[in-house]
Amino acid sequence: MNSTPVIIDSKPVSFVIGEGALKHSKRLLKKFPRMIVLVDDNVRKYCLPVFEEFLNEFEFSGVVEIRSGEGFKNIEQSIDIWQALTDLKVDRDALLVNLGGGVVSDIGGFVAATYKRGIQFINFPTTLLGMIDAAIGGKTGVDFSGFKNQVGLFTDPIAVIVDPVFLKTLESVEWQSGYAEVIKYALIMDRDLWRMLDGKSYKEVEEWNKIIIKAAKDKIDIVRYDTHEKGIRKNLNFGHTIGHAFESFFLKTATPITHGKAVAAGMICESWISSQLYGEDCVLLPEIEGMIDKSFDRLDIQEKHIPEFMELMRHDKKVREGKLQFSLIKKIGKAVHNIEVDNPMVINSIKYYIHQSISS
Amino acid sequence: MNSTPVIIDSKPVSFVIGEGALKHSKRLLKKFPRMIVLVDDNVRKYCLPVFEEFLNEFEFSGVVEIRSGEGFKNIEQSIDIWQALTDLKVDRDALLVNLGGGVVSDIGGFVAATYKRGIQFINFPTTLLGMIDAAIGGKTGVDFSGFKNQVGLFTDPIAVIVDPVFLKTLESVEWQSGYAEVIKYALIMDRDLWRMLDGKSYKEVEEWNKIIIKAAKDKIDIVRYDTHEKGIRKNLNFGHTIGHAFESFFLKTATPITHGKAVAAGMICESWISSQLYGEDCVLLPEIEGMIDKSFDRLDIQEKHIPEFMELMRHDKKVREGKLQFSLIKKIGKAVHNIEVDNPMVINSIKYYIHQSISS
Repeated sequence: MNSTPVIIDSKPVSFVIGEGALKHSKRLLKKFPRMIVLVDDNVRKYCLPVFEEFLNEFEFSGVVEIRSGEGFKNIEQSIDIWQALTDLKVDRDALLVNLGGGVVSDIGGFVAATYKRGIQFINFPTTLLGMIDAAIGGKTGVDFSGFKNQVGLFTDPIAVIVDPVFLKTLESVEWQSGYAEVIKYALIMDRDLWRMLDGKSYKEVEEWNKIIIKAAKDKIDIVRYDTHEKGIRKNLNFGHTIGHAFESFFLKTATPITHGKAVAAGMICESWISSQLYGEDCVLLPEIEGMIDKSFDRLDIQEKHIPEFMELMRHDKKVREGKLQFSLIKKIGKAVHNIEVDNPMVINSIKYYIHQSISS
Repeated sequence: MNSTPVIIDSKPVSFVIGEGALKHSKRLLKKFPRMIVLVDDNVRKYCLPVFEEFLNEFEFSGVVEIRSGEGFKNIEQSIDIWQALTDLKVDRDALLVNLGGGVVSDIGGFVAATYKRGIQFINFPTTLLGMIDAAIGGKTGVDFSGFKNQVGLFTDPIAVIVDPVFLKTLESVEWQSGYAEVIKYALIMDRDLWRMLDGKSYKEVEEWNKIIIKAAKDKIDIVRYDTHEKGIRKNLNFGHTIGHAFESFFLKTATPITHGKAVAAGMICESWISSQLYGEDCVLLPEIEGMIDKSFDRLDIQEKHIPEFMELMRHDKKVREGKLQFSLIKKIGKAVHNIEVDNPMVINSIKYYIHQSISS
């Protein structure tokens, strides 16, 4: 079947989404005298051959390989990439092709935007999370000193090419990671998507192509109106204020957790806060918890860790004048942002997550 | 005397230039809940007291000190600043105050633009070079792997406050450094300024306040029309293509040279190329050389170094599709850019610089 992808020209970025996207990207790539491909070790093994098969008429003048995993999304690895580009004598008119998941597009976008004061780049996401979230929206950067995305900037790729062909290379944990964000779009802005998901776990879902197009469009819609996160883009932070603290916490341990797992846990906490503020009749906490628990085991956290979570949140970019700001949901499909929540309620939400009740 | 500075609101940057600028900046600083001052060791000693005296009503919630000199304009020192901001728990709504010369504003702008995906910053230049060039125009970054400004980005401070009060702290070598760029503005765009300079060395000039306002305005004018260096901003690269190669070369030796010295030498080479292409009657090479030689000793370079200079130029950001692009002058006060120059002519210009003739 010769599928036609969905094309969204949302200046300054062209989005090409769905089956056939890779093939369609050829006309874009033709414009560049030199292309360098950034991959991680997993991508090199599983996705690069697929990529090269589709784009066999192109010669890539270099493949730069980084180590996979959020634990390597750091300045040291950025330095390695800047060095590799320097060694390859890459000029300003070259294109960096970020082929991979969120780590590759986050670090690749950051490095491209800062190499010789900026070269152009294209994201080719290869994971579910990359396709519907990380590759879209211009947030780039690396973790630093134990904090997520502490160093980075807003910068746009010239294009994001989302081709589900890579999904066949995914491992279960990567499906799960992306699924947390799919659930998030449903909760904050897309009741139709919530109905499509129909309470299923990621293992039960079948119509991935449709879901990916829907979720990617949700993300594009929101960042198109608010690239720099002054307003509604903050809605995307639902589940992420507490979720990032969980992720940062485990990043420092011997058993880091995926972004998706952290966000899934964060969404339960922040849905609990939402239900406290906006009423249990509106927020339907049991339905949300049931849906999330179907795909995600609870994190192994304890009450004694709560002060550290709070300290990590203090450092989060979502702090203004020292006060924690949350994005919450008023009901399924409707989010609000810039909601100041007092520390005791945040603490109670984590207690609720741990015990399924706040009396411990 | 209660002087009034020149104010230029050139969105998104406010420029306040001339005596009284520091005092005028108070209304801007009032907007920020927290301010961190970035200085180097020299600035801390000589300029910070002057700064604090003028702004004694403000409390700065942190002073971050870096080591002075181009040799420390690197990623390692950027990491130190990111770490210091992290340790100070600096939020997104804080302001970074870059108090210092070009190294401080280059590295400070880069770090501010990439800390938590960007916090705002203001440049308070304390050197002549900073006041008329480095602090203006949004180029930020650090040297990397032996190449000047290899890592960085275009990003604007919210304001540039140029107060000559700091000039009294300058050493001779810093006057000299700034003077190279003053001569450059005269050569590329400002015949009036050339007349004001009147062939003098930097030691003979008296009306610095007037010259600073004129030169800073020249820079503002050019970057206002072409922030991202697509067109006329390239005129500012006059003297810099070969000059940067000289600077990078000496950066790797035990005796680095100042940016100004490198550019002065580069301007002689590139004036020679200009005179070859546009005629000696127009370019008046002897007049230009005489003026530059009055303030700058010739660099200690030899013919055997030329291949290394050429290799360094190959890496310069002013290369497109592998070809060297120059900004040259057609006559005093009139520059042109995007001029491809063959390697033999570039080589001959350096030979001319070394021997005052091209037959060696």
